[in-house]
Amino acid sequence: MIQVYTGEGKGKTTAALGLAIRASGAGFSVYIGQFVKGRFYSELSAIKKIKNITLEQFGRSCFIRAKPEKKDIELACEGLNKAKEAIRNKKYRLIILDEINIALSLKLISLREVLNILKSAPKNKEIVLTGRCAPLEIIKIADLVSEIKERKHYYKKGIRGRRGIEF
Amino acid sequence: MIQVYTGEGKGKTTAALGLAIRASGAGFSVYIGQFVKGRFYSELSAIKKIKNITLEQFGRSCFIRAKPEKKDIELACEGLNKAKEAIRNKKYRLIILDEINIALSLKLISLREVLNILKSAPKNKEIVLTGRCAPLEIIKIADLVSEIKERKHYYKKGIRGRRGIEF
Repeated sequence: MIQVYTGEGKGKTTAALGLAIRASGAGFSVYIGQFVKGRFYSELSAIKKIKNITLEQFGRSCFIRAKPEKKDIELACEGLNKAKEAIRNKKYRLIILDEINIALSLKLISLREVLNILKSAPKNKEIVLTGRCAPLEIIKIADLVSEIKERKHYYKKGIRGRRGIEF
Repeated sequence: MIQVYTGEGKGKTTAALGLAIRASGAGFSVYIGQFVKGRFYSELSAIKKIKNITLEQFGRSCFIRAKPEKKDIELACEGLNKAKEAIRNKKYRLIILDEINIALSLKLISLREVLNILKSAPKNKEIVLTGRCAPLEIIKIADLVSEIKERKHYYKKGIRGRRGIEF
């Protein structure tokens, strides 16, 4: 099954993390590949303590503000290769490709390649894609799409990201 | 801050669980009170292993299909009292009231009481409310509201809840 969490609202990565916890609680092994992310997030400390969850990051520690650099593309391509391996690896039941939609919209990786990977994935795998601006082609082949709408957000009141809550 | 995760789509409880993991990774203590839920969910096994997360359930093991029973009301009221205690308890930084919106829409607990609890909560607490049909009064006082829209769901293809993915 392919699940997509997209939209502008808060909750996409955390929904995927929650799924990882649930799956690990059921005894499944989980692979999380984070695209476009290379900095420390508080969840990493907690996730590292959970035996059957593997998490890898494929981004630089800063945000991509304007044009992506060569390094961004290299890291994202490495992430996609690792994703392919994880999907092929019998060990993993749940594979989370966090912020892969962002990597796609920045054209760091090829949409056609991602579609091929998803279409040829074994049917018993649960693959979760997160990030705003999920491409229509991904939505078409997905089995579940949750769009998280931002009805209200405190950043509009000037509140910035807080450790333990946003990162 | 008060955060609300509502809407029909999949991802509300998992988003809250992900927040719990993130907060616990930052060293914060987390209280999770689950309303209307009394059966086993896979996440319970994983959450139990994380030291600084406390999880309690205040529901029966079956779903409330028609009219709620006296036991449902008793359990939900107990949950609300525990929530009040957790919010007052200096130990907890994040308090998750999972499916409280459902308890409210079933009238198991009083909306006025919930609003009072939220309004009088210390400002340094992060309180997260989940469940579809969040009352407008809650949305009004919330600092963040994410509405999860169901754009596509595999249950429409006849696929039922699966262990480790839905429960």
